[in-house]
Amino acid sequence: LKIFALNSNKPLAQKVAAAVGVPLGKISVDRFSDGEIRINIEESVRGDEVFLVQSTSAPVNDNLMELLIMIDALRRASVKTINVVIPYYGYARQDRKARSREPITAKLVADMLEKAGASRIIALDLHAAQIQGFFDIPVDHLMGAPLLADYFLTKGLDKDAVVVSPDHGGVTRARKLAEFLKAPIAIIDKRRPRANVAEVMNIIGDVKGKRCILIDDMIDTAGTITLAAQALIDAGATEVYASATHAVLSGPAIERIEKSPIKRMVLTDSIQLPEEKRIDKVDQVSVGELIGDAI
Amino acid sequence: LKIFALNSNKPLAQKVAAAVGVPLGKISVDRFSDGEIRINIEESVRGDEVFLVQSTSAPVNDNLMELLIMIDALRRASVKTINVVIPYYGYARQDRKARSREPITAKLVADMLEKAGASRIIALDLHAAQIQGFFDIPVDHLMGAPLLADYFLTKGLDKDAVVVSPDHGGVTRARKLAEFLKAPIAIIDKRRPRANVAEVMNIIGDVKGKRCILIDDMIDTAGTITLAAQALIDAGATEVYASATHAVLSGPAIERIEKSPIKRMVLTDSIQLPEEKRIDKVDQVSVGELIGDAI
Ligand SMILES: Nc1ncnc2c1ncn2[C@@H]1O[C@H](COP(=O)(O)O)[C@@H](O)[C@H]1O
Ligand SMILES: Nc1ncnc2c1ncn2[C@@H]1O[C@H](COP(=O)(O)O)[C@@H](O)[C@H]1O
Repeated sequence: LKIFALNSNKPLAQKVAAAVGVPLGKISVDRFSDGEIRINIEESVRGDEVFLVQSTSAPVNDNLMELLIMIDALRRASVKTINVVIPYYGYARQDRKARSREPITAKLVADMLEKAGASRIIALDLHAAQIQGFFDIPVDHLMGAPLLADYFLTKGLDKDAVVVSPDHGGVTRARKLAEFLKAPIAIIDKRRPRANVAEVMNIIGDVKGKRCILIDDMIDTAGTITLAAQALIDAGATEVYASATHAVLSGPAIERIEKSPIKRMVLTDSIQLPEEKRIDKVDQVSVGELIGDAI
Repeated sequence: LKIFALNSNKPLAQKVAAAVGVPLGKISVDRFSDGEIRINIEESVRGDEVFLVQSTSAPVNDNLMELLIMIDALRRASVKTINVVIPYYGYARQDRKARSREPITAKLVADMLEKAGASRIIALDLHAAQIQGFFDIPVDHLMGAPLLADYFLTKGLDKDAVVVSPDHGGVTRARKLAEFLKAPIAIIDKRRPRANVAEVMNIIGDVKGKRCILIDDMIDTAGTITLAAQALIDAGATEVYASATHAVLSGPAIERIEKSPIKRMVLTDSIQLPEEKRIDKVDQVSVGELIGDAI
């Protein structure tokens, strides 16, 4: 069994390897002068069960191509199996044709991974669980909810708590966290009363005088989650926490989180955060052991 | 018949469309906040024969993913055929395992294009003609040599000329240009006499008192071509021209070309050059009509 880390999230790969109890395999993944990816596998892999750890987070196209080229090289080096650990699966939101002539990039990515030679996928909180069905190879779908629940339970924040889904699409996810916390749920149901009129945040469920724990699969620009937090405060919540598996945090996300009434946000390390995005308000729990257990 | 330009080389796509006599189709290809590619095809394409123009030049991974996602969107929009014009085919140099455990990325790219849904490929001066065999769909392989030859013929530079291949791998290419110019050929045969000793440039053929025309498929860092030019001058060439199809021009290329004894360099517009790489010494001839004729 060999574990290799590509460039997107080496600290997490290191934790996975430590959990499994093997050192990371030796590779170098860098660039030719013209920007093309150069991969060098610096140890024998013939006949091995190989695990690759790569999140297809930003820069998504570079990280995806690194992964595909590495799979190609391994397949041609006669490995036994290629197990691809994708803690964050990029392009997951492009998972259906919402309008005419849209691509389904999440399926394209699945096809590319299979065609390149992946034998098995290990993913974490896919944006839609249906993405598992885009693959013809086995997919292990891990859940961050128990880890996020642990965070709140350990700090005793489950008392007087209500778990809130920031939109109607995330109710199942909220339900799951609520079960772990033995807490009720509430839902924010955004509605636009008429065209060109601001959305109204209807809160379904009881949040007054409660500690609200917002849960989503990812925080991208943080628009939805910070507006939801404000709506909860306006509705009489005593305090608002937010949690999610994937720390996409693009564009204005950090500024919005800092300015929002969110007390603390808890995310996982499925995406490696650059220094400037590591702020005090955000705690990161590691999925390293969770993934290690799945290997 | 509809022609769409992705982002790598819109000026060339414009010329191709003009040669064919149709306007470019309406699409927008931009980015979501997190850097993922967003494609919007803004006109009906159902049942159409579609041509896409995209060079997979730098940033190669972004340009390749744009192309793959666009192919996916078109296929799902029930077009009749997807004809992919790739004036510059990135990753073409990774076309075989030169060492153990290397990927063959040129084949991976071919597989991705087919899997995404391409019906036919139109390529220009592939680094190795064998790359045609990486595809199971039809490949039209266009040649820049007649265009480059025209440049020299029109200027009367074929007189007293010898066409020089900068390495032993490029002799067939030099032969082809030489036929058009009715000129003899010469070859530069680099040899390293012992390890850790500088390479020696052996010139095979007669260059003394001649106008040398160096020919290659691409100019990347321009190391080979500028050293070759100096060797030719040292061997008594009166002047040195250089030509190639693909203007990769990465890293120190521009500086090297400026400083070299190369009198003029002629390249095609298969790769769009940013402003800072358009220097006086370099002429670009367009492959727009050549590609238009192939459509
Ligand atoms: N990277 C992205 N950033 C923002 N929106 C996206 C992205 N990728 C896809 N989408 C859009 O997000 C919507 C899907 O989101 P959801 O309804 O949460 O599954 C679709 O309409 C997509 O067009
Ligand atoms: N983008 C690139 N830049 C420089 N060298 C490359 C690139 N891609 C592949 N190569 C190497 O170039 C060699 C092939 O070049 P050639 O012998 O001219 O076909 C192989 O050894 C490759 O490892």
